[in-house]
Amino acid sequence: MPVQIREAIIALPAYPPPIAGRTGLRLDFNENTSGCSPSALRALAGIDGETVARYPDVATAEMAIAAAYGHSPASALLTNGVDDALLLLALTVLEPGTEAIIPEPGFAMYRFYAAQLGARVVAVPFRRSPREFVTDCAALDRAVTPRTRIIFIASPNNPTGHLTPAADLLALAQRWPDILICVDEAYAEFVADDATGLLPCVLRQPNLVVTRTFSKAYGLAGARLGCLFAHPDLLPVLRKAHSPYSVSTLAAACGAAAVDDKAWVRAYRREVIASRALLQTTLDELAIPYWCSAANFVLCNAGTRARELTAGLRARGVLVRDRGGDIAGAVRITCGRVSQTESACAAIKEIWHG
Amino acid sequence: MPVQIREAIIALPAYPPPIAGRTGLRLDFNENTSGCSPSALRALAGIDGETVARYPDVATAEMAIAAAYGHSPASALLTNGVDDALLLLALTVLEPGTEAIIPEPGFAMYRFYAAQLGARVVAVPFRRSPREFVTDCAALDRAVTPRTRIIFIASPNNPTGHLTPAADLLALAQRWPDILICVDEAYAEFVADDATGLLPCVLRQPNLVVTRTFSKAYGLAGARLGCLFAHPDLLPVLRKAHSPYSVSTLAAACGAAAVDDKAWVRAYRREVIASRALLQTTLDELAIPYWCSAANFVLCNAGTRARELTAGLRARGVLVRDRGGDIAGAVRITCGRVSQTESACAAIKEIWHG
Repeated sequence: MPVQIREAIIALPAYPPPIAGRTGLRLDFNENTSGCSPSALRALAGIDGETVARYPDVATAEMAIAAAYGHSPASALLTNGVDDALLLLALTVLEPGTEAIIPEPGFAMYRFYAAQLGARVVAVPFRRSPREFVTDCAALDRAVTPRTRIIFIASPNNPTGHLTPAADLLALAQRWPDILICVDEAYAEFVADDATGLLPCVLRQPNLVVTRTFSKAYGLAGARLGCLFAHPDLLPVLRKAHSPYSVSTLAAACGAAAVDDKAWVRAYRREVIASRALLQTTLDELAIPYWCSAANFVLCNAGTRARELTAGLRARGVLVRDRGGDIAGAVRITCGRVSQTESACAAIKEIWHG
Repeated sequence: MPVQIREAIIALPAYPPPIAGRTGLRLDFNENTSGCSPSALRALAGIDGETVARYPDVATAEMAIAAAYGHSPASALLTNGVDDALLLLALTVLEPGTEAIIPEPGFAMYRFYAAQLGARVVAVPFRRSPREFVTDCAALDRAVTPRTRIIFIASPNNPTGHLTPAADLLALAQRWPDILICVDEAYAEFVADDATGLLPCVLRQPNLVVTRTFSKAYGLAGARLGCLFAHPDLLPVLRKAHSPYSVSTLAAACGAAAVDDKAWVRAYRREVIASRALLQTTLDELAIPYWCSAANFVLCNAGTRARELTAGLRARGVLVRDRGGDIAGAVRITCGRVSQTESACAAIKEIWHG
């Protein structure tokens, strides 16, 4: 091709999301298996042609959503899913000659955007034990160079499910004040004892950025909505670099309605926490090892039977995710409503015994 | 701030869209003043919680929309508004040390994304006469250097309204096969004699990219949907670099329904073309000079009375856009339904006669 494509784009591996033909019980994408709040659907159905025809003005929704997280638009920015926030952060600090530290296995998009901007990706493995993954803060420290511009880390992490203590992440940010520390709290609502995470810390730590998504607990993955939280000194820089019409009127309306329906998300959270316990008990009974999870999924180690497990579940109408590419034998199973988890557990037992 | 922000982001001027407090007849954003097709609203209202909770799978909608333009997903990619396509193109070819040629005055986002990627923006003025703006292809040729990677040009152009002949743009692409020529056809549906534009040429010219939007004729500005067309050799590169979940399920559903309702968009197109003639006649009667437009707006030269005109219209509930920042005295007036244009023309007459 005669057109001169940037080297980083040529080198970028394709990321075809395995999204096609998803029929059955969706335990493969850590989505909300209950749908979304009826008030989000009502908000959608109530939108008229006049509103759809206007360019989005999401200021009111942004204020309401920021407030639901204890913030204001001075420290919160709505994004087109968290992906849009990750791209924005990459655009803000990464370029050829810089480095991004990414603990792995992690969410694929951190690497995608860092590579897209031409930064070198420095992968730091989580410390693995049979029952747990742990964030290795000392290894992260050792990976820092004068070229490091950002550390992308999820807590709870996907696909391992482990939670890094907020104090450890804050300390990491304090040790490296000239590096952006992006903590992706996509699964924060499913943490059993504390769902606040690092949100309050953002206001006193200028290099700390926290992202929250509406794709998981709130069940709005199809609408595309995320929210990025940053210090009021940093947020205006990010806002200025953000595409002004990135967030649709429809997503903003759904999101504002969803945060307003606290009872719905609280009830779903309870279901997920009970489901997670049920799934872990089932795995214990079957002697299938798994890693402790604070999120709406459990990563188990099906060993040499991983393919049999995922194929058997698919044949029984249950979709789960083979994560063998990251960890040999690993299968990730989303936890949704308890009744759904009961079906999944029955199918797992059948396959494992059979 | 201790965090090391990229130079291009620090230098980026803020672009606060003048979107707040828009009450009245919306003739300020070249939106559809009729709303959108009722079938798009029905598609939206018919979406259930299960669908909203899933990550978007827009393949079916992409195929239907591409087909409506005579293409297939091999040469068409849905985007989160055209802005997302522009950012994608900038990411694909621009970096510090490269240049983007942008005929001006033009759509603000070309400059925004080129600057964001750290490219030098080379502005080439359109050739201006009292009745017309003309694309100066010879000046574009002269602006090319070995560092040029992309030319962003809209046809019809915003805010000038002039159409560059498709043959001229194709010849430009043929003369510079190693430079991306991005032709933004956001207003193509309003061209009186031919709305096809450059879409068929994309298949035989590998460096030509055409974008279409759903924000104008289709009335879906709030939903965020665009479509990028490129040669089948180039499109996979762009698709691979594109955020996989950039386009929402909601936008894709609206777009697929909208292209299916051909009668609705055809009727609106007729209204706009009649409105444009009516507005131009009125401006002639009042001896207010204007530039010939092929789009759903007319840029007039209100000279020293520009501020009086925009303020007077606002006081009468009609919003128009002061483009004095680009061209002294220029005011851009969107053409919507004929009845709306009649109201606007009555208000203009009242103000002009004093």
